[in-house]
Amino acid sequence: MTAPALKAGYACSEGCGFTASLWEVVYRCPRCEGLLEVAHDEAALRAVPASEWKRRFESRFATSRLPDGSGVWGKREWALPELPLEDIVSLGEGRVPLKPLPRMAAELGLGSLMLKECGVSPTGSFKDWGMTVLVSAVKHLRSRGTPIRAVACASTGDTSAALSAYAAAAGIPAVVFLPKNKVSLAQLVQPIANGARVLSLDTDFDGCMKLVQAVTADTGLYLANSMNSLRIEGQKMIAIELCQDLGWEPPDWIVIPGGNLGNASALGRGLDLLFNLGLISRRPRIAVAQAQRANPLARSFRGGFQDLVPMQAGATLASAIQIGNPVSFRRAVRMLRAFDGVVEEASESELANAAARADREGTFACPQTGVALAAVEKLAASGVMAKGSSVAVVATAHGLKFADFKVGYHRETLTDVKAAHANPPVELPADLSAVRAALKDLG
Amino acid sequence: MTAPALKAGYACSEGCGFTASLWEVVYRCPRCEGLLEVAHDEAALRAVPASEWKRRFESRFATSRLPDGSGVWGKREWALPELPLEDIVSLGEGRVPLKPLPRMAAELGLGSLMLKECGVSPTGSFKDWGMTVLVSAVKHLRSRGTPIRAVACASTGDTSAALSAYAAAAGIPAVVFLPKNKVSLAQLVQPIANGARVLSLDTDFDGCMKLVQAVTADTGLYLANSMNSLRIEGQKMIAIELCQDLGWEPPDWIVIPGGNLGNASALGRGLDLLFNLGLISRRPRIAVAQAQRANPLARSFRGGFQDLVPMQAGATLASAIQIGNPVSFRRAVRMLRAFDGVVEEASESELANAAARADREGTFACPQTGVALAAVEKLAASGVMAKGSSVAVVATAHGLKFADFKVGYHRETLTDVKAAHANPPVELPADLSAVRAALKDLG
Repeated sequence: MTAPALKAGYACSEGCGFTASLWEVVYRCPRCEGLLEVAHDEAALRAVPASEWKRRFESRFATSRLPDGSGVWGKREWALPELPLEDIVSLGEGRVPLKPLPRMAAELGLGSLMLKECGVSPTGSFKDWGMTVLVSAVKHLRSRGTPIRAVACASTGDTSAALSAYAAAAGIPAVVFLPKNKVSLAQLVQPIANGARVLSLDTDFDGCMKLVQAVTADTGLYLANSMNSLRIEGQKMIAIELCQDLGWEPPDWIVIPGGNLGNASALGRGLDLLFNLGLISRRPRIAVAQAQRANPLARSFRGGFQDLVPMQAGATLASAIQIGNPVSFRRAVRMLRAFDGVVEEASESELANAAARADREGTFACPQTGVALAAVEKLAASGVMAKGSSVAVVATAHGLKFADFKVGYHRETLTDVKAAHANPPVELPADLSAVRAALKDLG
Repeated sequence: MTAPALKAGYACSEGCGFTASLWEVVYRCPRCEGLLEVAHDEAALRAVPASEWKRRFESRFATSRLPDGSGVWGKREWALPELPLEDIVSLGEGRVPLKPLPRMAAELGLGSLMLKECGVSPTGSFKDWGMTVLVSAVKHLRSRGTPIRAVACASTGDTSAALSAYAAAAGIPAVVFLPKNKVSLAQLVQPIANGARVLSLDTDFDGCMKLVQAVTADTGLYLANSMNSLRIEGQKMIAIELCQDLGWEPPDWIVIPGGNLGNASALGRGLDLLFNLGLISRRPRIAVAQAQRANPLARSFRGGFQDLVPMQAGATLASAIQIGNPVSFRRAVRMLRAFDGVVEEASESELANAAARADREGTFACPQTGVALAAVEKLAASGVMAKGSSVAVVATAHGLKFADFKVGYHRETLTDVKAAHANPPVELPADLSAVRAALKDLG
């Protein structure tokens, strides 16, 4: 099914004109220091009719076998068209549920509110979508003889978990740089279990980032951080699959939590491709949601997209987006301009309560998803999201990764959070009449 | 697509002849106290050719929309054929990855070893498959006017999480009976977050079970425990989807951890249906794996399937199968006899090391899955599983639900476990030459 004529390569995302083969090891534009992006041959892609792309993607999903059944590799011509099938490293990422929240939608006056449940995933977060592309590319590089000893990243958690799992599946050594005592136990243990060499460093996230960049500047370690544009090619499939879920009809709004902003810009790349190839006929609007304590994009937006002013991110429950100097700031701004986008922010109380409110409809939202849901509440209340709008939220991780957040919320012990939906257990003796009395008001 | 002629009803699984409508509230045979099962009209099902069933199931998966995209409701004629579509309560359960473990397979001399990753699921465990059926049936009962105030269960964890999430999605109140201080924090907090009334009772699992049965004997609370045969109709889809993943060619062996044994018997029901309707042409063998400290079925097996001798289950890391008096013992024995089955058991060290070994290939195995993997190691070593066999293991929960188990393993602090694959983090100063030295031997 793969059209052999399709090609893709690196190009500088700042438009300086630099290009390179995808099979070179290059992370940033050597001319202007801009981030790279994977440029597809859109003319060749457009030669296939939209109806044929839809048919092809659907027929791939009909099988649950990998790689066709993967949310990324079922659309492989749009990811890395020249990658040989045998180099694909898939754990069955993507094709995740779209979960409606009808009660919350009705209360907010929205036509619909849906969660794209990207935490229902092999390693429990949406990073799997991108990491399968990166690790597959590295497997291919190694098979071509490029001397890569190991893959490496600095990460607050989800990225390192995803990298370690995919590298383990591929049999490629992985190294993870983690700030000591800054990530949850559940997050630290995934790379450890997957056999990565975990370096627990006496520094913060930025310090880890500096060290990993210094070490990967040596030959032999391949850098998997979010400036790596291969990952974007997988992350963009979230937007594509979301439109597919809706019968190739985009929602009015897509909302995503934003930290380093690579994933926010990936949304735009996916939607651009859908629109340019004729699979969707209009562009949704996009809202990026930030924690109030780590809101450099929101600050820029309020000033009409002023230049980035890096900040020291404050401690937030939404630890995965606690980033004050986002690497993909410029591409996120370009994306927001193209999609009539907005940026909203959420306080600790707002994010925690929005997550808890969604949980009451059967999900188990992580704090980052809480930030996005709180943004929806505020944008609906302010009228930016019109009455009756259809809204899809990218739910970025499984709440199981943030059990302490959930427990703290329902115990009402979280700092700066007034828990409006706390639901503590009822402690009772093992006695039938006590139990009956405790259930009298139900239903 | 639903064939309207298809019907199903309750029948006593002990063959006493009792039958009832699925829309009666009945949990056990009122004549002989046997467990019930859902009896399908196999003649009507057989009127549809096997090729048409395969085509239909695959075409449903081609869409990611629910309910067609669900691993259970994409095959709804085989679950509850008379359930109206509008009463389906789906969170996007099933259609989970089949993850190969090629290195472990090679080391064990097996042809293949695969994990059916049922923990990559909305609530993080394989219980979602069955709970979607039960809660959908309850929604239908309520829409027919049956006075059900709430659904209820007594559970060590995964069942209560699944029940609460599906009930929350359906807007049906849920009540969960939990033994105080006996389940992990991460497990307790899911029902709480999903708005269930959680009764934390000063007793053990058996005490909770007695109370929930007493309370549900009153009208108005619907019992969702594992004796409820509706859940089996969802759980059996695991075996069916597994064969679908393999192009309708069953593996030589299917291995599943066993506690209450309802899910083990569900495997047999799914395979029977596949075989009787001609979708598969041979029966795989089945191995049920138990923790050595909660091994009533293994003891019975060693005596040639002697009658159940209930035991006091000892504390095991595989807490979800820590059950000494399994409610589905008799149906599990019937299933094992029909599938040339065996029972194997694993010590604490064996289960923890087997889980860690699989993690090295990119999964994140729960302790119950560790029991099943340890059983594979032992059955391959003893020759019960012949060289070159293809083996699929039902991975029953996501390791994220057992973060303490993982952390304890890699810290080497688990009682009675000698951790052969511990991979502790390397603590380092934030210094480039120290980092380089720590990576010298890699790759």
